[in-house]
Formats: sequence, structure tokens, C-alpha cells
Amino acid sequence: VVPAAGRGDRLGLGVAKAFVPLAGEPLVLHAVRGVLASSCVDAVVVAAPPDDLDRAAALLSGLGDRISVVPGGATRTESVRRGLVHALGMRPAADVVLVHDAARAFAPPAVFAAVVAAVRGGAPAAVPVLPVVDTIKRVDAADRIMSTVDRSVLRSVQTPQGFRVDVLCRAHAAQPGPETTDDAGLVEALGEQVHTVPGDPMAFKITTTLDLAVAEVLLSREHAG
Amino acid sequence: VVPAAGRGDRLGLGVAKAFVPLAGEPLVLHAVRGVLASSCVDAVVVAAPPDDLDRAAALLSGLGDRISVVPGGATRTESVRRGLVHALGMRPAADVVLVHDAARAFAPPAVFAAVVAAVRGGAPAAVPVLPVVDTIKRVDAADRIMSTVDRSVLRSVQTPQGFRVDVLCRAHAAQPGPETTDDAGLVEALGEQVHTVPGDPMAFKITTTLDLAVAEVLLSREHAG
Repeated sequence: VVPAAGRGDRLGLGVAKAFVPLAGEPLVLHAVRGVLASSCVDAVVVAAPPDDLDRAAALLSGLGDRISVVPGGATRTESVRRGLVHALGMRPAADVVLVHDAARAFAPPAVFAAVVAAVRGGAPAAVPVLPVVDTIKRVDAADRIMSTVDRSVLRSVQTPQGFRVDVLCRAHAAQPGPETTDDAGLVEALGEQVHTVPGDPMAFKITTTLDLAVAEVLLSREHAG
Repeated sequence: VVPAAGRGDRLGLGVAKAFVPLAGEPLVLHAVRGVLASSCVDAVVVAAPPDDLDRAAALLSGLGDRISVVPGGATRTESVRRGLVHALGMRPAADVVLVHDAARAFAPPAVFAAVVAAVRGGAPAAVPVLPVVDTIKRVDAADRIMSTVDRSVLRSVQTPQGFRVDVLCRAHAAQPGPETTDDAGLVEALGEQVHTVPGDPMAFKITTTLDLAVAEVLLSREHAG
């Protein structure tokens, strides 16, 4: 499930994030290609901006019949839930579901494989993590520093996040608020143990214009190679 | 004060981080050029790897007489302290001291200016911060997830960090342990309020080989521009 219905406000380009151009092609196309490159994914459900559903479907139709496009919701949570419902209706039914940010278009196949292997190996849920590089401070409402957080016990979480399908369903059914950006957090709230696997710097989230520049370079290298 | 005596183990290149080549020139040279580009710095003290002191001095001698090179210590803290002692011996004495990671070679002049302005405006210490983009989890010793941290109250801290000189001296004199990677944390421990100013994605820390690739691209653009 690829939630890709966000507005991309932080990039400030005035275009839905899914359609931000990278080397002449929309971000979501690169992201779905990345998912397909991992041989452990049987079907991809993309939750696209509802106003641009046909555009997204046309765009992704060239990538084969493993891809479905559904209308995303007003929040990321709602988009994941819609994608999940669609995936549950497929035959054969999935037993492992991944949720993957379209903005992490360069997540390597090895990360997908590690997440799936952890869930197949018995984890109710598994997420790729990296150590936290920068010092982290806790601030008050006026952005004054309250304390330094011990970063040795912190991990930065990437996607794809992987779930036993029944666990993710229970987690989303129990979700109390209107929004979460973190499906693994819903699973934790159930009392289920979320496992970690090593993440990869290449699975960075495209958030700033610097990230976009990095993405362009990575793509130009791929083409050169 | 630029602590640049680290081994750079995380990059895995088998070369001291200060001398990692970027566009054919060592990282520390780019970093010091970046410091000089901010018009608010009168003198730069580089704590270099003790075994490569002459090499570092020769390298930086071309950048003018505002630069001193001192032998770094076994830890970052010790390197900062040595640089600070050197700076305190200068005439005229500094009233504001910045501590800046050599690995943040692309920190823009505006960030230096904002940090200095905050300290001149009355802050005992000021650091550039950014929101935390990734979900952050707390893990146990076996890397199992214990909880999700509310990232809305977290900030990722960059450098340059700025200090009233007496405050940084007191903080380093009071520092109990052998090592800290965070001078602002020492000031917090004194009970002094550390202020924040907006950071910049360009002030990222070069830590991974992906970061090195990004740095190469940024430099090639500068040359092109």
C-alpha cells in the first residue's frame, strides 16, 4: 500500500507530491517502480489524490497489472485504510502487507526483503530503522530547549513498514484519532511487539528541495550506469 | 572552533574525516571556507588530527591568517576544549564563540549570522534546529521498539552552535564525563537557557557515503554557478 495522496506543502511547489517531477517523471512513478524492483511484492495498491485519480491510473498503467490505483483520503491514515481495504478484497488474499511512503522512492530492494522476512519469521510488524545522527532536543511551545534526549536509544523509522495482515487490520480498526503518520505506532498501541530491521540511507524521505536535488542526481547516475 | 580530529569510522573510508576528499579537496578545507564565507567570524581555530597536524596546517595556510591549527584531542570534547583555550589566548579576546562540525561543510552564512545575532542579543547560547522529519522510536538494548516519541516537541540540532565565551568556559569546566558530542548540552546542565534559531537543510552532517555523493553534487553546482 503506497499512500500518495498528500499535498506536498513542505516542498512548496504547488503540486501534489505524487506528481512532483523527478528527471521528467512524477515521483509516484519512481516510487512504484522501486516497489516492483523488490521481488517480494505481489501487488501494489496506490492511494492517489482523488482529484487526479485518472491521471495517476494512466501514469501507472504502463508498469503492469500488479498495480491498482484507489482514491486516497483526506489524511494519510485514511489513504492507508482505503488501500488496505482494497488489498483485503484481492484473491488470493495477502498475508503480509507493507505500507510504503511514495516519498521514499529510493528504498532499496534489500530493505523490502528484510521487512518481509521479519514478518514471515514471526514478527507481528517490522520497520526499518537507522541510528539518529543529529543531537535531539526537546523544546517547549516557544521553541526553547527543555532537555537533551539520549539519542543512543532513539531510532529514526523509515518505510516500507511490514505487518501481518490481521495485525494491521486490528490496528487500524482500533485507531482512535483522525490521523497518524505511523502505522507501526498503531500496532504498538495494541500491545504487539514491533521488530526492527536495518534501514538504509537510500530510503530517505524526499521532504526538502535539497532532497529533490539529491533524487535528481541519484536518477542521473542510474541512467548513466 | 572547528573540531576536526575525528576518525570518520562511520564513512568507512579508512581516512581521517578531515581529509576525506570532496571534489578533489579535503573536507576540512571546504568546511573552513564555509566558515570564512560568513562575514561574522574573526578567527577560526581548527583542532586537527595530532598525527596530521602539519598536513592540516599546510592545507589551511592558503586561506589566510585568520586561521589557527591546534592538535585535537582523543575525543571531540577534548578537541573543542583545546580550540577554546587557544581562542581565549587571542588578543583581542572573543566574546562570542562558535563551535562548528567540519562535517557540516555546507552550513550557509545565514545560519552563522542568526546564531551570532541570538548570542549578541542576550542568549547565553544558541543553536540552529530543524523539525524532525522521520518518526522516532525508543528502543531497548535488543533494538526492540519500546515506544513512539512525540516528534512535534523534538528538534534536530545542527551547528554552528554559539556561546557567550564565559558560558562555554564554565560549561566545559563543569563537564563531568570524558565525552559529549553536544556543547549546548553542557550549557543546559549549568541551568542556562539555550535558545534556538532556524537551521537549514544545507547544514546537514556528512555521515554516510550518500551524504558524500550529495556533497560532490553541491560542489559541482557551485563551480558551474
